[in-house]
Amino acid sequence: MAEPIDDFFAVIPAGGVGSRLWPLSRAETPKFLHDLTGSGVSLLRSTWDRLLPLAGRESIGIVTGRLHGDKVGEDLPDVDPANVFIERDQRDSTAAICLAAAVLQRRNPDVIIGSFAADHVIRRQRVFEFTVRQAVATARAGYIATIGIQPTEPATGFGYIKTGEELDIDDAPLAALVERFVEKPDLETARRYFSDRSYLWNAGMFIARADVLLAELAENEPELHAGLQEIADAWDGPDRDAVLDRVWPGLKKIAIDYAVAEPAADKGRLAVVPGQFDWDDVGDFASLWTLIADGRRGEVTVLGENENVLSDEAGGLVVSQTGRVVAMIGVQDVIVVDTPDALLVTSPAHAQRVKQAVSSLHDQGRDSVL
Amino acid sequence: MAEPIDDFFAVIPAGGVGSRLWPLSRAETPKFLHDLTGSGVSLLRSTWDRLLPLAGRESIGIVTGRLHGDKVGEDLPDVDPANVFIERDQRDSTAAICLAAAVLQRRNPDVIIGSFAADHVIRRQRVFEFTVRQAVATARAGYIATIGIQPTEPATGFGYIKTGEELDIDDAPLAALVERFVEKPDLETARRYFSDRSYLWNAGMFIARADVLLAELAENEPELHAGLQEIADAWDGPDRDAVLDRVWPGLKKIAIDYAVAEPAADKGRLAVVPGQFDWDDVGDFASLWTLIADGRRGEVTVLGENENVLSDEAGGLVVSQTGRVVAMIGVQDVIVVDTPDALLVTSPAHAQRVKQAVSSLHDQGRDSVL
Repeated sequence: MAEPIDDFFAVIPAGGVGSRLWPLSRAETPKFLHDLTGSGVSLLRSTWDRLLPLAGRESIGIVTGRLHGDKVGEDLPDVDPANVFIERDQRDSTAAICLAAAVLQRRNPDVIIGSFAADHVIRRQRVFEFTVRQAVATARAGYIATIGIQPTEPATGFGYIKTGEELDIDDAPLAALVERFVEKPDLETARRYFSDRSYLWNAGMFIARADVLLAELAENEPELHAGLQEIADAWDGPDRDAVLDRVWPGLKKIAIDYAVAEPAADKGRLAVVPGQFDWDDVGDFASLWTLIADGRRGEVTVLGENENVLSDEAGGLVVSQTGRVVAMIGVQDVIVVDTPDALLVTSPAHAQRVKQAVSSLHDQGRDSVL
Repeated sequence: MAEPIDDFFAVIPAGGVGSRLWPLSRAETPKFLHDLTGSGVSLLRSTWDRLLPLAGRESIGIVTGRLHGDKVGEDLPDVDPANVFIERDQRDSTAAICLAAAVLQRRNPDVIIGSFAADHVIRRQRVFEFTVRQAVATARAGYIATIGIQPTEPATGFGYIKTGEELDIDDAPLAALVERFVEKPDLETARRYFSDRSYLWNAGMFIARADVLLAELAENEPELHAGLQEIADAWDGPDRDAVLDRVWPGLKKIAIDYAVAEPAADKGRLAVVPGQFDWDDVGDFASLWTLIADGRRGEVTVLGENENVLSDEAGGLVVSQTGRVVAMIGVQDVIVVDTPDALLVTSPAHAQRVKQAVSSLHDQGRDSVL
């Protein structure tokens, strides 16, 4: 087994609820705390396990909310408590990742930060490691690196990265400059991207030296940068909470794509390493079904309790958190999510709409089931 | 209010589980114990209330199974315990109805028995009473009378009664002979019947003098008749249980349609009174939806707990026995039946298949949810 990479520190932002996966995902038990693949462990734990050979136990950190600190600790008993960054409240991905970068840079000035979502599914570990090692080498050379996923279909649900000029970096043979980022395309455009191998899915993974990342942030968002530096100065001392209380609420909410990645791409500072591993952000129940059904749409796929699901020739997805009998009779392409206090019935074509249903429940004051 | 009819005794067979309405209907709480219309009372209780002005409190009896005797008593506190006939086990409708007839004839030799299912929905009470009074008059004249429902659509799910020659009976202006019974037709035939006003739905209601009914049975099924007479002789004495234990298990299981009605029709002894009241046997969840949705199929119709059902533009039926949130998102024509230990998801087109699902659960040894 290869050694962890020198100076590499993996940061796992674990913030989003994943409301398109309600009622499985809830404010108290968000998507990353669930086992969505039947692997026996949560997505967060899978992410930890995947990064362990690359970063080592002492060099993996989590950024999460107050509500989830305890559960993250239970799920990851090996995590160093000093590496758990509890957010006062959510300020979007730039604040989450760059705060960790600023704190970690004070602990190790040469640190290279990699940011990896807590709630994605990745398969083909060897290819993943091979790709991340190249991205770290690219970051060490001074670039902000991202990993782009080689598309396996003309997807319209992801943003794309257009790769540009190849770079010539030792240990990163596949690295290239990013020409530009592209918003989610329509189907025709997605088909064109799919034939043109230079368009990759933007999976939101970033790897950069902390000093490079923070310098880029300082150029684009100087106030946010200053606020994070002030917090980082106090983080490992007695004034953390006081400074947090004072500074954090004023920080700008902005995604790292806009605060760092896109401006860096425009300036020729963003590199991409294409990843050939299997990646899925499991954005909704339709994606989940595709992921775990392995193409067998003509039968009922069950996640969770399964000895009590009965169906005739119907095809569907049943996510069961209860011990109840679930009978699917004469229905096709129906998704049923059965939890103790809420039941969802939807279809793959409309699974995205679950988010609106959650908003609607919130508007009706039914937050107890959200 | 009109007086109860002299010598008329209404018998309510309350036996069938209604397994097409699983998981609402169960062996322990069959269809007739449920409020399927949101009226606030069970179908059994509605049947009792409907018959009360015709027969009077002392002259309504129930034939039911051992498992349901107590619940029937709770549901009908006014029933005379002497009029509750507990079946040792189910022997089909001839044994159920003719045993009651034989016992009641010993109590009143002139008794006229009417048999009315415990689990049908009937509306337009005045028309129902008008029809039953004619059927009793027809029975008093010596016929076995049935009530045929004037079809409101070309239904393929019911058997039909072809009316023949008109009779000339005082107080029964609409009574006619039954020409023959017809099995459930195909759609083309049903359409023909629907245009031809002489075909009526067979709703399984029979009204006859006990002596006439039993004489007809004696002709067609002499052994069954003899067995029932033997039990009836002992019923109101000390040997009821001993005779039941000895004789009941050997009784033939046969529907009253075959043991009495069809042979009587062939011999010109069966009369029919057409009923213009609304009648529904609520055979499955598709019928239930039609019944309670009142044609509004584009929205979600809720039976039971309703403040927690959420839907977008979807149309469907939600039967809820739990307090859970039920969200129907982007699904059309889906039927969801949510009970504490079992969940059914089906469609109107396949609601009939629920019966097979129940068989399948039985075969798998999961009778605890049946």
